[in-house]
Amino acid sequence: MITFENDYSCGAHPAVLERLLQTNLVPQPGYGFDAFSDSARSKLRAACACPTAEIHFLTGGTQTNAVVLASILRPWEGVIAAETGHIHVHEAGAPEALGCKVLALPEHQGKLDAGELRTLAATLLRDENVEHMVYPGVVYLSHPTEWGTLYTRAELEAISAVCREFGMRLYLDGARLAYGLMADGTDVDLPLLARLCDAFYVGGTKCGTLCGEAVVFPKGAPDHFLNFIKKHGAMMAKGRLCGVQFDALFTDGLYFEIGRQGVQTAARLKTILARHGIPCYMDTPTNQQFAILDNDRYEALRQRVPVGFWSHPDEMHTVVRFATAWYTTDAYLETLDQILAAL
Amino acid sequence: MITFENDYSCGAHPAVLERLLQTNLVPQPGYGFDAFSDSARSKLRAACACPTAEIHFLTGGTQTNAVVLASILRPWEGVIAAETGHIHVHEAGAPEALGCKVLALPEHQGKLDAGELRTLAATLLRDENVEHMVYPGVVYLSHPTEWGTLYTRAELEAISAVCREFGMRLYLDGARLAYGLMADGTDVDLPLLARLCDAFYVGGTKCGTLCGEAVVFPKGAPDHFLNFIKKHGAMMAKGRLCGVQFDALFTDGLYFEIGRQGVQTAARLKTILARHGIPCYMDTPTNQQFAILDNDRYEALRQRVPVGFWSHPDEMHTVVRFATAWYTTDAYLETLDQILAAL
Amino acid sequence: MITFENDYSCGAHPAVLERLLQTNLVPQPGYGFDAFSDSARSKLRAACACPTAEIHFLTGGTQTNAVVLASILRPWEGVIAAETGHIHVHEAGAPEALGCKVLALPEHQGKLDAGELRTLAATLLRDENVEHMVYPGVVYLSHPTEWGTLYTRAELEAISAVCREFGMRLYLDGARLAYGLMADGTDVDLPLLARLCDAFYVGGTKCGTLCGEAVVFPKGAPDHFLNFIKKHGAMMAKGRLCGVQFDALFTDGLYFEIGRQGVQTAARLKTILARHGIPCYMDTPTNQQFAILDNDRYEALRQRVPVGFWSHPDEMHTVVRFATAWYTTDAYLETLDQILAAL
Amino acid sequence: MITFENDYSCGAHPAVLERLLQTNLVPQPGYGFDAFSDSARSKLRAACACPTAEIHFLTGGTQTNAVVLASILRPWEGVIAAETGHIHVHEAGAPEALGCKVLALPEHQGKLDAGELRTLAATLLRDENVEHMVYPGVVYLSHPTEWGTLYTRAELEAISAVCREFGMRLYLDGARLAYGLMADGTDVDLPLLARLCDAFYVGGTKCGTLCGEAVVFPKGAPDHFLNFIKKHGAMMAKGRLCGVQFDALFTDGLYFEIGRQGVQTAARLKTILARHGIPCYMDTPTNQQFAILDNDRYEALRQRVPVGFWSHPDEMHTVVRFATAWYTTDAYLETLDQILAAL
Repeated sequence: MITFENDYSCGAHPAVLERLLQTNLVPQPGYGFDAFSDSARSKLRAACACPTAEIHFLTGGTQTNAVVLASILRPWEGVIAAETGHIHVHEAGAPEALGCKVLALPEHQGKLDAGELRTLAATLLRDENVEHMVYPGVVYLSHPTEWGTLYTRAELEAISAVCREFGMRLYLDGARLAYGLMADGTDVDLPLLARLCDAFYVGGTKCGTLCGEAVVFPKGAPDHFLNFIKKHGAMMAKGRLCGVQFDALFTDGLYFEIGRQGVQTAARLKTILARHGIPCYMDTPTNQQFAILDNDRYEALRQRVPVGFWSHPDEMHTVVRFATAWYTTDAYLETLDQILAAL
Repeated sequence: MITFENDYSCGAHPAVLERLLQTNLVPQPGYGFDAFSDSARSKLRAACACPTAEIHFLTGGTQTNAVVLASILRPWEGVIAAETGHIHVHEAGAPEALGCKVLALPEHQGKLDAGELRTLAATLLRDENVEHMVYPGVVYLSHPTEWGTLYTRAELEAISAVCREFGMRLYLDGARLAYGLMADGTDVDLPLLARLCDAFYVGGTKCGTLCGEAVVFPKGAPDHFLNFIKKHGAMMAKGRLCGVQFDALFTDGLYFEIGRQGVQTAARLKTILARHGIPCYMDTPTNQQFAILDNDRYEALRQRVPVGFWSHPDEMHTVVRFATAWYTTDAYLETLDQILAAL
Repeated sequence: MITFENDYSCGAHPAVLERLLQTNLVPQPGYGFDAFSDSARSKLRAACACPTAEIHFLTGGTQTNAVVLASILRPWEGVIAAETGHIHVHEAGAPEALGCKVLALPEHQGKLDAGELRTLAATLLRDENVEHMVYPGVVYLSHPTEWGTLYTRAELEAISAVCREFGMRLYLDGARLAYGLMADGTDVDLPLLARLCDAFYVGGTKCGTLCGEAVVFPKGAPDHFLNFIKKHGAMMAKGRLCGVQFDALFTDGLYFEIGRQGVQTAARLKTILARHGIPCYMDTPTNQQFAILDNDRYEALRQRVPVGFWSHPDEMHTVVRFATAWYTTDAYLETLDQILAAL
Repeated sequence: MITFENDYSCGAHPAVLERLLQTNLVPQPGYGFDAFSDSARSKLRAACACPTAEIHFLTGGTQTNAVVLASILRPWEGVIAAETGHIHVHEAGAPEALGCKVLALPEHQGKLDAGELRTLAATLLRDENVEHMVYPGVVYLSHPTEWGTLYTRAELEAISAVCREFGMRLYLDGARLAYGLMADGTDVDLPLLARLCDAFYVGGTKCGTLCGEAVVFPKGAPDHFLNFIKKHGAMMAKGRLCGVQFDALFTDGLYFEIGRQGVQTAARLKTILARHGIPCYMDTPTNQQFAILDNDRYEALRQRVPVGFWSHPDEMHTVVRFATAWYTTDAYLETLDQILAAL
């Protein structure tokens, strides 16, 4: 059985699981105060070249976005995101459940444009009725975006400059960060994120762990961040579960290896799709490939291999996501090739 | 190194971890729609003798309490709990963060009294100003309680009868349910809970898993419960993580075996404490033992072995919690015996 | 001193104030259970030709929108509004503070388009990931819109049909409803709203009262709506304050007279603006007129008469709102004419 | 027709209403930026001998409590109140709706005890599990209390000292402050409150206005307090409504006159009750008198005159509240005397 439905279809990368086995019987304090979490934090700080960073582990992406936003937004502020941003579309209203309004901007292949961001912030802040409006407080980026695309260093610096100009904080959702960091031609790395962002998270769930995301606050965490975690139901008694896994991910470059493998597999996948005449909806350099199929072919395909439904661009077609991950073997690709040939 | 600080100091029970290893590379859908979660649900329904039960897996206790309460409380209602209830004292305001007021009643060794519950509900509902008050909507019990004590079948039936009389739902927090079910002399079992409760959870984190609690809705879940899970940041992409673990817990009676081992170890621990002249604060039949130490002895003890701070009953003394679990070996007990002898 | 800044610059219509004087010393129960509120409700039900309507009085528009939405949205739903909708732009995040996400659609002169609404609802509900999304639960209209424009009967019926098709409730914000009902050529009246809407409010604050909006639930109010009012801080001890005022508004057609006066005055205002070569930003039939001024002229004007800032359509111009109300006398118009002549 | 049901059964004190009439046609800016609100603020600052105070007007008590608490509590904090505190019992969960947990302490004739407050704060802050708990952030007092009793200057200073010691803010609910300030023998005045409190409100609704409470922040308001007001639906378009009324209340000592009249009338009421052998439940010096009636006599009484239900101290008796206000004339008292004589 194979799948391209998403990048969380299997368990943990074997090296991560092995580390859970090795450490299983070592007693440790709860709630993230364990030695494994500390070790993982040290390795993450080193990888970010940011000795001052405070790092906390949470279990999943939606939770992480909601808790971080609740902690860095002030009560009169909202968060700016692309209209395709995960927090705006696919989190069932989790930010709003904590009282955070999402201010949506147009997307450009999933990305915010620094100029449009500047215009929105400037317009809001010079509006004579701003006391009746939601202030622009935080800018949310995802990298890779929901379309698998990437910001360039220059784009991030431009957005960061707008944030500084208007007193906004910059938050980056790195659910699939491993694939972004290892994409061909990217000039974005962890130290850059630590330099530009007020908060970002290094995704685990979609990059090799059973669960867990590592939130990095380069300049220190908000006051009483542990209480935010607890109050929003995100505190794990066995905080070691995330700590051990991130310790494994950041040992011997495993996180980057996972990223590289996912990206390379996606490149080969793209070749297979092309060979079968299936057009890509967008050209993306990371582990998600979006293809356009007519509806009949989509129905036939999904009977034989799980893929991700994305959207209906028109009545006749379906955009389908193929995702790769550390468990996407050559056999997966060969089987897909045969399925597509027989479709 | 040994610890009695809590029942979540190590990883997972070896049989649970083994099952994660075995299933690691089997691709499955996300979000709890995997075959392992389905299998675990079937086994739980059988253990509860409740074929109609709907079961969902969440990651931790505070989260579970908050999400379930949000889903079963109506907007004009609050939840009644003992003044020592976990939701009232140790969840950093998580229920209130979702708008749920906790209506506290006196505790009797950690338990609610059905008569006092009846008086509260009756008084509120006949109050001529009730439209300005919070209605009694849900009754929260923990079993074992925060003091490690247990309700009897008769006590639960009396509370359930009050709930039915006043249209309240009954919710039971089973964070340490394994130990409650296997305590000497208890007449409470899973089928009884399924018969009396509108919702309860079978605790995993403190009973052998890395994380995870199984919420059981014997009469069916609230509408759109998946959306509640997602909206409150509690949806796991790899829902299989909980599913696999609960499938292991409910295979060959492992859950009950873990409970039995914890209870028996606690009984031996109680003997050791008594031998060293350390009085118990309360006589409890489960895996938590609460002892009274003068402050100096507490300080000396905690230098040598992690134990749980509980409270200061007066200026001179400290109540300390000793918890046992599946990883509490004979060697743990012998080492503690020596430490206490040398104190 | 004159003003065109808004329609709430003076106190109450003299007939409303007179009624407050007359009833001032008659003791009545609190919280809306007074005889004046009952009388007002009867008159409103008659005006709506809707004997089954339940009616509650709240103090202001933002509060009304928030409390009503909280009561008619289910926890997994959001509210659809035009991107210019008051709840989306000018309520400082009040809906989100109660956990309600606003799903914005394009505006057409401030109005929603039934076709676009249908597409959004259909797309959301057939999305295979809808459990991760916010369901379309309520449609929010304002009538007159924030641009002073009006829906036609046919447009409202088309929107209502979409709501029924997809199980959405229809809610109409009538902050300035008096002006809408009395505009030239409109075919929308109160009985139509009572027939099509699940909830709407008849605005008082901007139509002659000191404060107060009348929420009409044609098919009955949500369960425990009084608790929603109280819980969200919207319950007035002296509920009579709103009751007396609405009783006056709906005695001898005063509400309609106020609407007619505002609309006619606005028509004359439009003539004056045209005479001075000031273009309208949009052609609107109600009591708000939006004019385009270059920035210098705007600065000069606002030194002499209060007008409402609306937006900067470009760097050089400002859109200004001129609002009329029951207190906009001939003298106001003549003074404005002179000011514009001298500008 | 007479009533003793509450102190908000009639409209506004005639002098307040007269001021609304006088100012009705003077155009003013909205949202509290009008000259009348400014004038009222000046007079309130003078009455409080606190030139630095920031003052905002809100419409009612529950709303005021909720908005102020939301603005002065940090997300990890709760508010301490007596178990009889209005925010804990009679606001339908409004604080919790904004995420604020109420930490209840025993009441002593409706009052908090400084020693118990100190113990609670000290115990919480030295608890080793405090990161899982709600921090003590604000202390809520009502003065007069819900039982009509009063703090002494010494008691308030002791409570204030505890607040300073533990970094808590002090907030005082003055819904009936006029009666407290004018009670016989009180040594509490407005300048004392301005010196000791971080925030308090001077009640209008129960002291002579149609609606409105004046929130005083002696050391300045929280950042962006206007946004808190708007976000929680408490912003009035015609802010002048409260401004004009408070301007009248603080002209020529009207507020104090209203308080004096209410207190004196209550003293005469107490004499009448005593003459008819009706015992008081508590000896209170302000405008609320609580009497104990057997249930039959309560039923007979309420058929003839509206009084306030308070509680059932046992199955046979009812505690009834008699409230006086500016509209409680001699004729009211004489009629009550006759009714009681005939009971």
